[in-house]
Amino acid sequence: MLLLQEKIKNEGKVLSNYVLKVDSFLNHQIDPELMREIGKEFARRFAAEKITKIVTIESSGIAPAVMTALEMGVKVVFARKRKSLTLHDAYTANVYSFTKQETNEISVAKEHLHSSDRVLIIDDFLANGQAALGLIELVQQAGASIAGIGIVIEKSFQEGRSLLEKDGFRVESLAEVASLTNEKVTFKEEEGAFV
Amino acid sequence: MLLLQEKIKNEGKVLSNYVLKVDSFLNHQIDPELMREIGKEFARRFAAEKITKIVTIESSGIAPAVMTALEMGVKVVFARKRKSLTLHDAYTANVYSFTKQETNEISVAKEHLHSSDRVLIIDDFLANGQAALGLIELVQQAGASIAGIGIVIEKSFQEGRSLLEKDGFRVESLAEVASLTNEKVTFKEEEGAFV
Repeated sequence: MLLLQEKIKNEGKVLSNYVLKVDSFLNHQIDPELMREIGKEFARRFAAEKITKIVTIESSGIAPAVMTALEMGVKVVFARKRKSLTLHDAYTANVYSFTKQETNEISVAKEHLHSSDRVLIIDDFLANGQAALGLIELVQQAGASIAGIGIVIEKSFQEGRSLLEKDGFRVESLAEVASLTNEKVTFKEEEGAFV
Repeated sequence: MLLLQEKIKNEGKVLSNYVLKVDSFLNHQIDPELMREIGKEFARRFAAEKITKIVTIESSGIAPAVMTALEMGVKVVFARKRKSLTLHDAYTANVYSFTKQETNEISVAKEHLHSSDRVLIIDDFLANGQAALGLIELVQQAGASIAGIGIVIEKSFQEGRSLLEKDGFRVESLAEVASLTNEKVTFKEEEGAFV
């Protein structure tokens, strides 16, 4: 998605070979026009899948997920990282964060996921794949089917995609970052372009 | 906002005289069509205010805030409850949650709030007003001006509105719940209707 790639090039900050900060439009400040375009693109890519529910995780997944849901005419449910006081009967999974070096129990209320659902999972980043795997686990506990995983920014030099594809899941990423070395964002399609 | 009141009547669950659960469309599962209507209504009410930025707090404020921002053509920044590893130079405030009986330090990166900003604060609920007061504090630290506070659901039997109005802030709530007694939602305009 060219618009997203341009935004990453112009506003993304490479903090290390592994960390890309996109706080100006996705993870802290949010650009709603860009989110709408992202929603349209996910809706287009999964148009044939008869999606009935979008599942994401708080907080940064919510904006792209809601815009995709608006385009598709379905509802979103976001998994919570901290148990709500009013959330009792829930599917739960453990998600390890390599960045924060901690495990969070994520949860979704059983009443919002059904075995008849055809689910699209949306998240802001794909790196090690741990959040996506946790969301898949929640959806599978409900007996629902998974049409695929829609990712805004994939760090394709990490193992997330291969873990998900190994399990047979379709992964659609709107920007695939091949490298963050030399303080520079290189997208997958640019890689080796000058070889 | 009638559409919202109907949704609360039909799907809201009164858990106690103080707790209204709206997890089916606002706080856990999200109804994107309703969020769009909410965004349009906030944009209409604050149309004259020349808003340049919307400030909200993760997680449940994000969906209504993003839709309002889309309508208004501005960006949103959401305050974080837990400090991000990549968030260093930030405005911070302490927010006490009566429900959870804990204090969270909320923060917004300085680069996303400027003294020239005219801010609309959006949140999902107004009860004791502590979250709104914390957000106001962040905006004031930046030297930005505050056009008002847009609330999706106000529990008007709690003190939030009076605390905010005492400080001179305009509060616009799309649904004002006057009472949750007898396991029933009574809106402000219904109160005393049969007296």
